[in-house]
Amino acid sequence: MRHLLSTGDLSRDEALLVLDTAAELAQVGDRSVKKLPTLRGRTVVNLFYEDSTRTRTSFELAAKRLSADVINFSAKGSSVSKGESLKDTALTLQAMGADSVVVRHNASGAAHRLAEWVDGAVLNAGDGTHEHPTQALLDVFTMRERLGRLDGLRVAIVGDVLHSRVARSNVLLLHTLGAEVTLVAPPTLVPVSVHTWPCSVSYDLDAVLPKSDVVMLLRVQAERMHDAFFPSAREYSRRYGLDAERFARMQDDAIVMHPGPMVRGMEISAEVADSTRTTVNEQVTNGVSVRMAVLYLLLGGS
Amino acid sequence: MRHLLSTGDLSRDEALLVLDTAAELAQVGDRSVKKLPTLRGRTVVNLFYEDSTRTRTSFELAAKRLSADVINFSAKGSSVSKGESLKDTALTLQAMGADSVVVRHNASGAAHRLAEWVDGAVLNAGDGTHEHPTQALLDVFTMRERLGRLDGLRVAIVGDVLHSRVARSNVLLLHTLGAEVTLVAPPTLVPVSVHTWPCSVSYDLDAVLPKSDVVMLLRVQAERMHDAFFPSAREYSRRYGLDAERFARMQDDAIVMHPGPMVRGMEISAEVADSTRTTVNEQVTNGVSVRMAVLYLLLGGS
Amino acid sequence: MRHLLSTGDLSRDEALLVLDTAAELAQVGDRSVKKLPTLRGRTVVNLFYEDSTRTRTSFELAAKRLSADVINFSAKGSSVSKGESLKDTALTLQAMGADSVVVRHNASGAAHRLAEWVDGAVLNAGDGTHEHPTQALLDVFTMRERLGRLDGLRVAIVGDVLHSRVARSNVLLLHTLGAEVTLVAPPTLVPVSVHTWPCSVSYDLDAVLPKSDVVMLLRVQAERMHDAFFPSAREYSRRYGLDAERFARMQDDAIVMHPGPMVRGMEISAEVADSTRTTVNEQVTNGVSVRMAVLYLLLGGS
Repeated sequence: MRHLLSTGDLSRDEALLVLDTAAELAQVGDRSVKKLPTLRGRTVVNLFYEDSTRTRTSFELAAKRLSADVINFSAKGSSVSKGESLKDTALTLQAMGADSVVVRHNASGAAHRLAEWVDGAVLNAGDGTHEHPTQALLDVFTMRERLGRLDGLRVAIVGDVLHSRVARSNVLLLHTLGAEVTLVAPPTLVPVSVHTWPCSVSYDLDAVLPKSDVVMLLRVQAERMHDAFFPSAREYSRRYGLDAERFARMQDDAIVMHPGPMVRGMEISAEVADSTRTTVNEQVTNGVSVRMAVLYLLLGGS
Repeated sequence: MRHLLSTGDLSRDEALLVLDTAAELAQVGDRSVKKLPTLRGRTVVNLFYEDSTRTRTSFELAAKRLSADVINFSAKGSSVSKGESLKDTALTLQAMGADSVVVRHNASGAAHRLAEWVDGAVLNAGDGTHEHPTQALLDVFTMRERLGRLDGLRVAIVGDVLHSRVARSNVLLLHTLGAEVTLVAPPTLVPVSVHTWPCSVSYDLDAVLPKSDVVMLLRVQAERMHDAFFPSAREYSRRYGLDAERFARMQDDAIVMHPGPMVRGMEISAEVADSTRTTVNEQVTNGVSVRMAVLYLLLGGS
Repeated sequence: MRHLLSTGDLSRDEALLVLDTAAELAQVGDRSVKKLPTLRGRTVVNLFYEDSTRTRTSFELAAKRLSADVINFSAKGSSVSKGESLKDTALTLQAMGADSVVVRHNASGAAHRLAEWVDGAVLNAGDGTHEHPTQALLDVFTMRERLGRLDGLRVAIVGDVLHSRVARSNVLLLHTLGAEVTLVAPPTLVPVSVHTWPCSVSYDLDAVLPKSDVVMLLRVQAERMHDAFFPSAREYSRRYGLDAERFARMQDDAIVMHPGPMVRGMEISAEVADSTRTTVNEQVTNGVSVRMAVLYLLLGGS
């Protein structure tokens, strides 16, 4: 493993190695362990073409807990806005000695192209509607921690799959790890290529809920709902929102996941959001551990 | 003391402990001491909903001199601008393992609410027109350093008290420490609740000046002066600006304070601004020491 | 040497000391050396009034490899945008204990003025159309590394000299080190004061090319080309762009330099840009070493 571009590149053993390493690193930051010297003197660059304070901060914290130096290289106000190509930016970062580039880009495939140009490890922190592999790894880590297993787990992923890099990364990773995924979405929000994905599709949340160990909600991006092609926000909420009534029909130990930030009253009701079976904050915590693990493994820690 | 939300929460002993600790930490950064390992592995998040490079930088320097990791979490371009609530942001930062959140927010009371949601220490770096406790602590530290005492000190606070969080934090803290405060402002720039504050009010700067050991000027925010309700900038400057003539009528050892940045020619003339009895730059220096002290005490240093 | 404001201030010995120090420090960041503790506990402030992610990042990396703490003090959103003067900002940074201020400003002379107000070392990272000394130092470092000598080297600097701080800093430094510089530009893009510079001027790139050991291209700022006074972008590219045909007429071991980012198809063709004799990425790498050397020497490392 030289880069982390797609969860589809991970073998079962590689994925489990990331999860096991994350479990060990989860203790760092506690009063006793504090900080590891593993990546001292290494430089991690956060190259973000889209704003994402949450993801950027999570990577920054992960790198700092391993004692790496972190450079935040925002595309805004940089040569990028003066027309510099992604390639020239990549070569510049490489020339400066970046050991790792964490990249968020609005174009699907940007992370792959970057990996062709630089020697350092490229970590895909979200490329267009394509992939967001560390999000899937932290989701799977959270499932394993909560439910004790991944093999045979039944996971429903609910929402705007069409525009979601989180959904694709999760489907590929969960399949590799033996879970069964069902995508639940309005027909117009399912990608046409979905028949090539290793999962089932349903348009009926109420049918899928009682059979699921995990219900993963995707964030609704209201600005996309203005298009007549898509359901209205109200319609979406009514048919696919997880409210208390639907929540009650889930299995007793089933969990609710959300990559955050949640829109309370839209894809999730306030009371479900605050339930102890909703793992949104654990996912954030686990995100730091999983990103530490990936940096540790890719930068050849120790 | 678990958080620092308001100077009104500080007992006399707690306030003096902050000042004494700051006096000891003031040496760190000198060639001999350089840096303390006290907060190594701890994470301080600067959560700024309003721009304030000065205050943010001061906290960042203070945290780094204690070897903490600092994350700048600007609300701009974050999920916040996508409608995330303060509560969800707070829970996210907590989930990421923030040991302390330094918060600047345009809403009065924001820091208090934040403190209800997170386990880490919350430091109020300015909430609306409410409080700015570290500013008051550094002001008081500067007075004690310059004048050798706080008890019985006569302090005039001059300017737009109505919109000033600095004024309120200073009044409460100075009262606790035995000083006598007089607010001096145009009638329309005094809050109606001022009768509940432990201080006097005057509309006549020239009457108050000769009796004051400290004249603290507030920054004039010219954009507020467009309202017909308030004096014009010119009128304000004429009646409440500290020019050389007024300065000459102050006591020989009385000092002039200003939180910066000064608007020369408005609330202060250029020559008074550059006087050795004007402490604006010392206040900046002391700000770093005071913030180190607060971080040290709240994060249970050593 | 207390500040680095202009390459014209550097004696031959001082310039060589920077280059030799940079050569030694170039190894830091390798797996074996990683990081030097030299500037531990020192604070370097990046005070950027103009966006320049590349230069800011290069200084940030250089400072961090010497273990300094780095504060990015962007003028946007700071008191600066509320009308604070450069002087007040300078005094504030000094009061906060900045050991060094790296300044980028749109006004020529800003770095000099800053140096009058602060005790710490001022590093000019570009002031208006005046100077950009670390860029010239890294250019000269690259020439020496590639060609083994500076004395007697024939260097052509091609492009918009009128608006270029890079050209002026290079002319002064190269002259000090014994190289011969020819500026090549359209007549309207040569400054009227050029007769006071220690270099020749030519309007004919094709005449200069075969006699040059180094061809340094300046970045074309297309927004300046709208003025009827200047050549059009197309005209510029035809007469002064370095394409494969012109490249073929250069000496076999002559090199092509560019401060980046390159505009492929404008001042340089894509194939020349990607030639192994084009040093743009080495310049970036050397930039970090040169900035480490300057910080090391100015902050009295060891």
